[in-house]
Amino acid sequence: MRQSTLLLPTLREIPAEADTVSHQLLLRAGFIRQLAAGIYTYLPLGLRVLRKLEQIVREEMDRSGAQELLMPAMQPAELWKESGRYDLYGPELVRLQDRHQREFTLGPTHEEVITTLIRQEINSYRKLPVNLYQIQTKFRYERRPRFGLLRGREFLMKDAYSFDTDWDGLNRTYNTMFETYQRIFQRCGLRFRAVEADAGTIGGEGGTHEFMALADIGEDTIASCTCCDYAANLEKAVSKAPVRMENSQSATDTLPTPEHIHTPGIRTIQDLTNHLHIQATDIIKTLIYLEDEQPVAILIRGDQDLNEIKVINYLNAVTFQMADAQTVKQVTGAPVGFAGPYQLQIRVLVDEQVANMRTGITGANQADTHLKHIVPGRDFTMMDTGDFRNVSEGDLCPVCNDGTLVFHRGIEIGHIFKLGKKYSEKLQATFLDPQGKEQVMIMGCYGIGVSRMLSALVEQHHDDQGMKWPSSVAPYQVHIIPISVKDTTQMQLAEHLYLLLQDKGIEVLMDDRDERPGVKFKDSDLIGLPYRIIVGKDAGEGFVELVERADGVKRRLSVEEVLSVFEN
Amino acid sequence: MRQSTLLLPTLREIPAEADTVSHQLLLRAGFIRQLAAGIYTYLPLGLRVLRKLEQIVREEMDRSGAQELLMPAMQPAELWKESGRYDLYGPELVRLQDRHQREFTLGPTHEEVITTLIRQEINSYRKLPVNLYQIQTKFRYERRPRFGLLRGREFLMKDAYSFDTDWDGLNRTYNTMFETYQRIFQRCGLRFRAVEADAGTIGGEGGTHEFMALADIGEDTIASCTCCDYAANLEKAVSKAPVRMENSQSATDTLPTPEHIHTPGIRTIQDLTNHLHIQATDIIKTLIYLEDEQPVAILIRGDQDLNEIKVINYLNAVTFQMADAQTVKQVTGAPVGFAGPYQLQIRVLVDEQVANMRTGITGANQADTHLKHIVPGRDFTMMDTGDFRNVSEGDLCPVCNDGTLVFHRGIEIGHIFKLGKKYSEKLQATFLDPQGKEQVMIMGCYGIGVSRMLSALVEQHHDDQGMKWPSSVAPYQVHIIPISVKDTTQMQLAEHLYLLLQDKGIEVLMDDRDERPGVKFKDSDLIGLPYRIIVGKDAGEGFVELVERADGVKRRLSVEEVLSVFEN
Repeated sequence: MRQSTLLLPTLREIPAEADTVSHQLLLRAGFIRQLAAGIYTYLPLGLRVLRKLEQIVREEMDRSGAQELLMPAMQPAELWKESGRYDLYGPELVRLQDRHQREFTLGPTHEEVITTLIRQEINSYRKLPVNLYQIQTKFRYERRPRFGLLRGREFLMKDAYSFDTDWDGLNRTYNTMFETYQRIFQRCGLRFRAVEADAGTIGGEGGTHEFMALADIGEDTIASCTCCDYAANLEKAVSKAPVRMENSQSATDTLPTPEHIHTPGIRTIQDLTNHLHIQATDIIKTLIYLEDEQPVAILIRGDQDLNEIKVINYLNAVTFQMADAQTVKQVTGAPVGFAGPYQLQIRVLVDEQVANMRTGITGANQADTHLKHIVPGRDFTMMDTGDFRNVSEGDLCPVCNDGTLVFHRGIEIGHIFKLGKKYSEKLQATFLDPQGKEQVMIMGCYGIGVSRMLSALVEQHHDDQGMKWPSSVAPYQVHIIPISVKDTTQMQLAEHLYLLLQDKGIEVLMDDRDERPGVKFKDSDLIGLPYRIIVGKDAGEGFVELVERADGVKRRLSVEEVLSVFEN
Repeated sequence: MRQSTLLLPTLREIPAEADTVSHQLLLRAGFIRQLAAGIYTYLPLGLRVLRKLEQIVREEMDRSGAQELLMPAMQPAELWKESGRYDLYGPELVRLQDRHQREFTLGPTHEEVITTLIRQEINSYRKLPVNLYQIQTKFRYERRPRFGLLRGREFLMKDAYSFDTDWDGLNRTYNTMFETYQRIFQRCGLRFRAVEADAGTIGGEGGTHEFMALADIGEDTIASCTCCDYAANLEKAVSKAPVRMENSQSATDTLPTPEHIHTPGIRTIQDLTNHLHIQATDIIKTLIYLEDEQPVAILIRGDQDLNEIKVINYLNAVTFQMADAQTVKQVTGAPVGFAGPYQLQIRVLVDEQVANMRTGITGANQADTHLKHIVPGRDFTMMDTGDFRNVSEGDLCPVCNDGTLVFHRGIEIGHIFKLGKKYSEKLQATFLDPQGKEQVMIMGCYGIGVSRMLSALVEQHHDDQGMKWPSSVAPYQVHIIPISVKDTTQMQLAEHLYLLLQDKGIEVLMDDRDERPGVKFKDSDLIGLPYRIIVGKDAGEGFVELVERADGVKRRLSVEEVLSVFEN
């Protein structure tokens, strides 16, 4: 491709709207342009990367035995009502009405469509298992679109859906997908971790893993072990449970009874530690939530954070949210900041780290007052004790005996689910087994955010000057830059190389613009193709400079030597 | 691909919903499934054909120098308001609101988006011309979705948009696209004609051609010359204008004056010819229309049809529709069926064939009454005379002196437009010319209905047994059918051929299902791959039968001979 005719509008300034490095670079290098919040046009170079990512995904999915199809974006709303997700999905679901006022959605995901299709087309165990995928534009009304392609409203996904006769089958398919995903992300040049995750909205009865590209701007925290393979999303991560030290009756007897402390206007853990000269680990935080309209208290040690997902799963709650000030007042008799478990008349959930404290300081359910000498088991019940906290860095690994947990930030680029019967039961995707008995299919689903990978790649592969594309997904492999297009010797050699390399099947971009070398080099750094060939003053002797974008290594080479670099 | 694991649900029965051969066969052969009216899922085989069509389009567009990009489906409604199309497009435009009640459309076409993009990114003649295309899912609320993929609500399009500095440039780009389209449709194996057409909703100031796949179910009529290259859509087609025979004053004087005929309940041309024992060519039809709320009469010879598009273009009308009975009564003083130009007080448009009649029979603007001896020019004005009729088969070609017009039915598969300044002016896509003067870009746009081509291909390539795919777009090239999967000799030879052919880069489908030969052959005919290799009783001697789907020719060949058929 000749750059003089290519739509490749680079920018020197950092666009004000761009909130991350990848967003800035993709805009500046002319890969994408925003049409509306979270809605982007892929310009020619951006689209080339997208298509390469798509092709790697397609090749590996095909290799795994999955079959590609293409489902519509427009889905009848009835299907979503049948599965129960029409209401559950909330305002993120794109809803529309056709000219006859029939309701449709624009699919953010296709469980309903594929399950209905398979219900109609497959009715015997002999046609199973089957794993079907598509690579398709998806729509979702993000509450707050941002980070360029990372959190968009229109984006490219690969979604796959598997149907097995039983759980063993699903486990095999799931493992195949796990390995396929690893190959895909490796081929694309991404640094990633596969982590245990929570099933979230899509739900499902089995396990689920997220594939996380490691990057500081990642919206998710990953906890992983320093010694073994254990890695989990913070929502899901657990640490080794503390050895439970029961307060024996006699031990409790020797402890002082609760005692009021005057704490005027002291509402936060920070204020309390300062005021009383104690550690956060001495405090028991009491958090008041509404679980399906019912108030519930959760006790967490002062230095730790509540993990809402763990509580939701423990309670099997449909709705779960922090109580407002009025409810707190009603339930505890005190303003926010002074709640405590002592003599509290609602259900109390106790984190196991709290259960392990000998005594703690809590709110007194009375304005400007706390209590000390609060003893778990004596002063509040421990009926509902469990793991309700986020793990902390340094916690012991729950799997091995050697490691501790460390944290990383990650961008979710893939997610695999064991759905089980969640959709097949509701939508009646059944089959006849070898005995002629009707059985419900066991499903899995497997997503990859293809356009998201583009941003994740830039987050991982760039420097101050611009992007550094891994060869497997680079828009072109080689950038030929004649220093002066008016110098016929240089241009002849450049054209010669341009044709020779293309004959070898190498994708080449040639900067044949009549621009100053500085401008060309700046643009070239920004675009970040793996190899740059500078055709300059040594052109007459048949020598050029080959520069590798990844490490900046420069070599003066003859034409033959350059060509030999691209021999496979 | 092994058929035992492929999602390829063939049907023996003709689905009730299918209204054309292509629709029936695509459903029966398991290529597509309907999700909602005009909304389809492409199953694996259907998707393979779609991807091949897409790839041919891409290769030829790239070869023409066009650049691929990808614009969003969701478009801010403001852009459509800026171009003035938000209201004009009517109920076919998919409209939606995001969660913040901002209005969007789902693009049926992308003139607004691309023009806005180019306005922002290109401002100098040095960056022009540029031709940008995308292959993308489009949405349109068809009033009456039907014919499977031919008239759908969600469909795959290639749309391209060119920007030139002047009309000469546009003409060059347009001609390049014309030739590119011819190559694309030829490569895909379509029989087609490029025809002159009317610009319709997209509009534009220059010419436009439609590319029509010839097929009896086509919704459009094409008129083409028996001798030269002339071909046009019926809306646009003209025939050689008749030599105007002026009625001289003296000639008119000798003609009888208008005379009433009693014609009780005779409202149609048919009734009138029967009743009066005359020819339809003796009658002048008077049609009352409303042009932008104003009544207007159009006179057409009794045997011919009004061409509304020609009238709309002549009048430059914004709205144009047949008047209702009440208006006809008001304007003519008579019920529908008895209108005539004699003493009529509204504007009268006269088709040139009517202008050429010596006398004619017309309605008398009075119930149950007609007039004879109505003389054009004497009894009504011929101020507005023009070509307002559809051409008829047998009319003289307007271009050459030798041919006459014949009619074909066609499916529109491509459409190219010279848009000129229609969008660039409204959306201010300007550039600086070499003199530093601001100029408006000159645009063209070029569409191909990719999913539509799939249906058009089946309409052209099938027989009673099923589809017959041209090699260039067949989902697989070869269908290997072992007669009995329980026969190890047969299966070994089949497997051997399966691997050998794939090693040669040939796409092979193997029917390894444990089904009766009759079932396999029926499915094979239905799917219609170009070559079938039957591995049967001669397998032991290393012989198979090769059958070509196109012509049914069968050959008994050795494995070596089979392989040599697929040497290029």
